[in-house]
Amino acid sequence: MIVNLMRAESTGSYSIGVDLGGTNLRIAAVSRDGVILEKIALDTEVAEGRDRVIEDMCNGISELAQRLGKKELAGIGVGLPGVINLHSGTVRQSPNLPGWADFPVQAEIERRLGTSVFLENDANSAALGEKWVGCGKNVSSLCILTLGTGIGGGLILDNHVWHGADGMGAEFGHMTIDPNGALCACGNLGCIEAYASATAIQRMAHAAVKMGRSPQLAKMAADYGEPTSEMIYLQAKQGDKLALEIFDLVGRSLAVTVGNLINAFNVPLYVLGGGVARAWDVFGPALLDELPRRSVVYRATQPRVEPSILDADAGLIGSAYLAFARGQGVAQAYRV
Amino acid sequence: MIVNLMRAESTGSYSIGVDLGGTNLRIAAVSRDGVILEKIALDTEVAEGRDRVIEDMCNGISELAQRLGKKELAGIGVGLPGVINLHSGTVRQSPNLPGWADFPVQAEIERRLGTSVFLENDANSAALGEKWVGCGKNVSSLCILTLGTGIGGGLILDNHVWHGADGMGAEFGHMTIDPNGALCACGNLGCIEAYASATAIQRMAHAAVKMGRSPQLAKMAADYGEPTSEMIYLQAKQGDKLALEIFDLVGRSLAVTVGNLINAFNVPLYVLGGGVARAWDVFGPALLDELPRRSVVYRATQPRVEPSILDADAGLIGSAYLAFARGQGVAQAYRV
Repeated sequence: MIVNLMRAESTGSYSIGVDLGGTNLRIAAVSRDGVILEKIALDTEVAEGRDRVIEDMCNGISELAQRLGKKELAGIGVGLPGVINLHSGTVRQSPNLPGWADFPVQAEIERRLGTSVFLENDANSAALGEKWVGCGKNVSSLCILTLGTGIGGGLILDNHVWHGADGMGAEFGHMTIDPNGALCACGNLGCIEAYASATAIQRMAHAAVKMGRSPQLAKMAADYGEPTSEMIYLQAKQGDKLALEIFDLVGRSLAVTVGNLINAFNVPLYVLGGGVARAWDVFGPALLDELPRRSVVYRATQPRVEPSILDADAGLIGSAYLAFARGQGVAQAYRV
Repeated sequence: MIVNLMRAESTGSYSIGVDLGGTNLRIAAVSRDGVILEKIALDTEVAEGRDRVIEDMCNGISELAQRLGKKELAGIGVGLPGVINLHSGTVRQSPNLPGWADFPVQAEIERRLGTSVFLENDANSAALGEKWVGCGKNVSSLCILTLGTGIGGGLILDNHVWHGADGMGAEFGHMTIDPNGALCACGNLGCIEAYASATAIQRMAHAAVKMGRSPQLAKMAADYGEPTSEMIYLQAKQGDKLALEIFDLVGRSLAVTVGNLINAFNVPLYVLGGGVARAWDVFGPALLDELPRRSVVYRATQPRVEPSILDADAGLIGSAYLAFARGQGVAQAYRV
């Protein structure tokens, strides 16, 4: 469970980080200072199969390396949405990447490119990015919630990524906030993912439109199709009452989970990342209003609770960091 | 936040552990194998003031040391219900020990007895005890919930007690399980402490009696006064429907919190300790029935969820362990 963030001992002046999502495949060359030097954004051709995606990834990496010319490459880090086996360099399970389970991804990319490759869960990569050059620069422990289609979690304790005994630590998205609440894709009732993911926001808006509660959103749906969470956010910004109510619920729901995390970890920083975190201005106030009631440790210690500053690049930068850190101590993982 | 459990480098063949509660003051001499050699149980004379309690504690310790004769004492560990400042050896806050905040407890006991003293939060001591010679012997990470008057939490990650940035980590008792649930003493609605502590069990029984739902418990209340959680447990054992319902709710409520902890930490062991855990036979089945629905990580990894085997001695043994471990690495605490 160990990636020691304090030692970046590899040689090479830049590394390449990959953020491999179910929809987007993003690749960046990153300097030793954590600055993105070059970036490529592709679609993830999941439907074309695993080998095609790996092919696209390797081509993108090669192209970036060519652009960087004579500079020496330290290695490659890949962030994936799934449970990673750090020892074998494989994906143990990933609902968003069908056909990837138990395939030796790391060895395959290393074989094709002749460079060291390090895998990590995408939310852990985002946590690493924030720790390295984001809002976590000055702390040694932090939690991140990545609010996207689903909700991921990443955890750095005392300068180490906490993977847990089976690489399944920090599954914050499936922490229960209401035991009889909304049904989650995982089968549980009342996971935070069912209240604060982009999918949940869309579901709530859809229900409100069906019940005739928002003429604005109904019109939007009629004109442009089912509103996305971004569109609902824009409505909230324009003062739409229903959209504001939805984001108020998002904030208050997140307060339960963030409050639980504060009570459990007592770390100094909790970061909200992922696409939905861009709506911080409409849900953040409710979150911060609710939090003192929810957490006795929050009241006593006043930790920081903030939106990501690296935004969509957190995972990309964190993945690149993996190569500089050379997976330091990763061999110690899973010895819990 | 670091107490390295793997090194017990002090000399001395036994140490003394103190479990200082709001009601009971228990002191034990413990061998290097974690066996209790001698034990003293006193009342904690909280009302007589802090100095009286320290006096009683030091007298008890001296008496035990005399009983052990010529054996060499390694040191003294004291578990307290409160937030400990490990650096200064003081209690930062403790609702159950009024007048103790910021008093140099550690230095005072050291001065009186001329031996090294180490303080720890009582639930962390219980976690240490279970890790050392209890159900956690074969794992390097575990969570414990101590179900007593309130609910405490202790956390060992990778052989280290996790104290958090301010010594307030593992406040599991105040994690929310129902955002609109029962009022907790901390001011939040729906903390697990309001559902699975001895106090909560008494409150639920009291309400049921008032509503005429349990003639059995009503008779008991008339004959012996307000039933304790132990008495309610005995009723459940005898098949009283209402008492069984209460413990079913205790188990299902705990499943939400334990499920959240499993999703957050992914450690291999979750221990239920404290007095209420003795009722495991009437709430454990409901807990284990509910847990798979509540936690995707539980379903995938099947961690152990068990009642304490050291029972009331966990804290006593864990406190004694502190002296053998010589607070290893404690100087690194609070650098988060």
